[in-house]
Amino acid sequence: MRSVDDVFHLAIPVHDLDTAFGFYVQGLGCHLARRYDDRITLDFFGDQLVCHLSERIDVDPALYPRHFGVTFRRRDDFDAVLALAGARELTFFQPCQSRFEGRVEEHLTFVLKDPSNNLIEFKHYHDPRMMH
Amino acid sequence: MRSVDDVFHLAIPVHDLDTAFGFYVQGLGCHLARRYDDRITLDFFGDQLVCHLSERIDVDPALYPRHFGVTFRRRDDFDAVLALAGARELTFFQPCQSRFEGRVEEHLTFVLKDPSNNLIEFKHYHDPRMMH
Amino acid sequence: MRSVDDVFHLAIPVHDLDTAFGFYVQGLGCHLARRYDDRITLDFFGDQLVCHLSERIDVDPALYPRHFGVTFRRRDDFDAVLALAGARELTFFQPCQSRFEGRVEEHLTFVLKDPSNNLIEFKHYHDPRMMH
Amino acid sequence: MRSVDDVFHLAIPVHDLDTAFGFYVQGLGCHLARRYDDRITLDFFGDQLVCHLSERIDVDPALYPRHFGVTFRRRDDFDAVLALAGARELTFFQPCQSRFEGRVEEHLTFVLKDPSNNLIEFKHYHDPRMMH
Amino acid sequence: MRSVDDVFHLAIPVHDLDTAFGFYVQGLGCHLARRYDDRITLDFFGDQLVCHLSERIDVDPALYPRHFGVTFRRRDDFDAVLALAGARELTFFQPCQSRFEGRVEEHLTFVLKDPSNNLIEFKHYHDPRMMH
Amino acid sequence: MRSVDDVFHLAIPVHDLDTAFGFYVQGLGCHLARRYDDRITLDFFGDQLVCHLSERIDVDPALYPRHFGVTFRRRDDFDAVLALAGARELTFFQPCQSRFEGRVEEHLTFVLKDPSNNLIEFKHYHDPRMMH
Amino acid sequence: MRSVDDVFHLAIPVHDLDTAFGFYVQGLGCHLARRYDDRITLDFFGDQLVCHLSERIDVDPALYPRHFGVTFRRRDDFDAVLALAGARELTFFQPCQSRFEGRVEEHLTFVLKDPSNNLIEFKHYHDPRMMH
Amino acid sequence: MRSVDDVFHLAIPVHDLDTAFGFYVQGLGCHLARRYDDRITLDFFGDQLVCHLSERIDVDPALYPRHFGVTFRRRDDFDAVLALAGARELTFFQPCQSRFEGRVEEHLTFVLKDPSNNLIEFKHYHDPRMMH
Repeated sequence: MRSVDDVFHLAIPVHDLDTAFGFYVQGLGCHLARRYDDRITLDFFGDQLVCHLSERIDVDPALYPRHFGVTFRRRDDFDAVLALAGARELTFFQPCQSRFEGRVEEHLTFVLKDPSNNLIEFKHYHDPRMMH
Repeated sequence: MRSVDDVFHLAIPVHDLDTAFGFYVQGLGCHLARRYDDRITLDFFGDQLVCHLSERIDVDPALYPRHFGVTFRRRDDFDAVLALAGARELTFFQPCQSRFEGRVEEHLTFVLKDPSNNLIEFKHYHDPRMMH
Repeated sequence: MRSVDDVFHLAIPVHDLDTAFGFYVQGLGCHLARRYDDRITLDFFGDQLVCHLSERIDVDPALYPRHFGVTFRRRDDFDAVLALAGARELTFFQPCQSRFEGRVEEHLTFVLKDPSNNLIEFKHYHDPRMMH
Repeated sequence: MRSVDDVFHLAIPVHDLDTAFGFYVQGLGCHLARRYDDRITLDFFGDQLVCHLSERIDVDPALYPRHFGVTFRRRDDFDAVLALAGARELTFFQPCQSRFEGRVEEHLTFVLKDPSNNLIEFKHYHDPRMMH
Repeated sequence: MRSVDDVFHLAIPVHDLDTAFGFYVQGLGCHLARRYDDRITLDFFGDQLVCHLSERIDVDPALYPRHFGVTFRRRDDFDAVLALAGARELTFFQPCQSRFEGRVEEHLTFVLKDPSNNLIEFKHYHDPRMMH
Repeated sequence: MRSVDDVFHLAIPVHDLDTAFGFYVQGLGCHLARRYDDRITLDFFGDQLVCHLSERIDVDPALYPRHFGVTFRRRDDFDAVLALAGARELTFFQPCQSRFEGRVEEHLTFVLKDPSNNLIEFKHYHDPRMMH
Repeated sequence: MRSVDDVFHLAIPVHDLDTAFGFYVQGLGCHLARRYDDRITLDFFGDQLVCHLSERIDVDPALYPRHFGVTFRRRDDFDAVLALAGARELTFFQPCQSRFEGRVEEHLTFVLKDPSNNLIEFKHYHDPRMMH
Repeated sequence: MRSVDDVFHLAIPVHDLDTAFGFYVQGLGCHLARRYDDRITLDFFGDQLVCHLSERIDVDPALYPRHFGVTFRRRDDFDAVLALAGARELTFFQPCQSRFEGRVEEHLTFVLKDPSNNLIEFKHYHDPRMMH
């Protein structure tokens, strides 16, 4: 179990702050914390995501070795984000599927792609002890 | 405030699993959750860090636009990790310093570099409302 | 003690959404949750504040009978918002002062004014049982 | 997620303290914290509501731009307050209805009117991430 | 550690509801939850106290075998109630004193008397494991 | 919501410590915290119950004005204690029944009698906001 | 209810650190905290288990008087560990069974045996107040 | 961080139930949950300790490989148990000392011996991340 007080923070490159705002706030429902000329900072599911204006955009994104996201403890929360992504027509890099079926590590997963080709994976494990 | 139940997860490239284990578990004090042939998964300060064996290592790492880490609510927790990093002689990419002094966003920060050139930043804000 | 799950919500009139954004997000450090043509919704210290575009602006604001704000349990959190308001030069309607001195209800209080003349009061009681 | 320690506080005008007590305590089930000659303070669903004796009563109340209330995380809590309002014959300004159907922001809502024409809205969102 | 969800409830006799209200709400700072013809119910430090109109008043109250109250985990909370009782001139049955000094069970204690001769004891143990 | 740190404490008379131990610990499943010559102290559903050896036993107990007990937030917890009282053949002063049916204050209640005629009431309200 | 901050710790003998790692981490899903030449330390369901290299192995293990394990509050968590133990073919010392049926103490239980003959019992009580 | 709902349980041999009660309840301040002919069950710092009547008593106890105890997050709690053990003259197997000084794993530790030669170690780490 993690602390409610501390936050994980992740910095990622984006090619444009307005489209990043559109995707993460207007789309994915994250909250905008701060806006600067060269970056925006977000409350991303309780943690901090910083979108830096950058030219180092991944032109041909692959799921490995770099992606990030949230693993939900409850199926309801996973389903709600999946429904939101569908209703608001966010771009799926990978549709919802089951992985490692029949093994203890079995989980549901889908992957979104933001306008700067960053990949965001949402997961839900059948056995919550596998979340790490 | 984030949920205690859900976890953030981040996948990063490493060139070797044993040195990743050495840095994150024996060094930084994270807990090993699972070990596979091509990756290890860690309980990284309560969240999940997955180290994937990869050839896409950053040879010339820069703090922007990609890094990750933890922002501590309490100064004590920040100081403890800083002391640990010193005592166990982890590699500093950037020593501890104060940033944005005199502004509301003022915070302490130091950056470690793992054996695969991933950069890990630890922060502590004077005003906890700036953590996002 | 209130629930962490439910939120209080308050709708207020503003004459302009951009200046409301400037005051509440860039100034007071609240997070922007959603933006529509006629309103913005904010995560205001954990509760929801909705700023509706309206012509019913209070031209001569008085502290009674209408104002809203946050009562902090800890002195540190009160002081941090007071410092932020000073550093970012937000408009004070009433400077920080002590009220009901010598009585059990004694508390510190200061009042800010947003660009649409809404009054926001921050309080800290010596005896936390007086917070209601 | 909001803090359990801090409270939101809201001051509203009422034309008479006894009828305010009747509506909020005997009716809506809030708790009376303090009673003064010119105001009563209430524990309103965990937050503080202060009813100030005032002549600035809204004679022709409209839902916009001013109202306040609680957004419940759980449907059960929303239903319980709706049932209470019916059983105790509180005045509805707007009956229970669904708003923004088919969109992510979809929520249930009903609005009560207190004896001084203040409007209190109770909401429940299908997707809890829309609560702000 | 006790549950935050459940409440202890205690019914006690009082000879008059108004003086009970005066002592517990206006004096001790408890919140009035409900008022009936024959009783009032109170949020007494988070638990429920019901004051029943009764003729079975204790004319010669003694601390044993019947009294009730709150044991505070933190010294600050104990001190705050002691200060409140002094400032509002509540009736002390027993002034603040230390009991069992030098033993593990050592604690601070003072006892108030309500207008119907019920005795309320507040305690603070040096070793919190002795609270039961 | 009450604090998890503080405890309510109640002192009651018992005519014999061993039968009190038998009823509260071996019967009702409370935990014995301390045993002295003249009293035992118990962890009673998280709060402190002190049974004092006394001759002031109530020979003809009535539910009003004196009784105590626990109000459970969840129906399951209420049912579990009811089942335990049946299985271990504790003495019922009043069987399980519904009170105030059709009103917001509706609740389930049953009352046990300890060997010294103290009455313990367990309750469960349909609307948890009525617990106080 | 126990504290989230403190941890129980238990030291046990193992004949080999690698097989202990295999059983507790790769098998039971515990997290490796530290590895030394003569012991490994584990995050065992939130508590600390230390496996010491030792020659004092129990050659003929019996459930009494020595065993340890976890009592789960929720049936789901019990079932998940039972399923994991089956899927990963851990050694059962005792299959899942019900004990004390018809009594308040009724609970489900199964016992695993680690490669050094330590016995680990997992339990789930119908009445959570029997967990101690 | 461990769960507040689940409990660790440990079964240990004792040669006599009354002296076990004397040590753990009257001495160490644990709470007695249940008493049977062949065992007593205890609330041991929030977890379950079961003392089984047994002839398999360790006549020559050594700290390795078998002992158990509590690691406290806060120094105050460690000090309080140390003070209690001194005041009530419990038997120390090892006095309070510092271990691994100058290393990140540095901690305070003392070891008690119960009347059946079971060893109980209490610890406090300078860096709380070392508690596992």
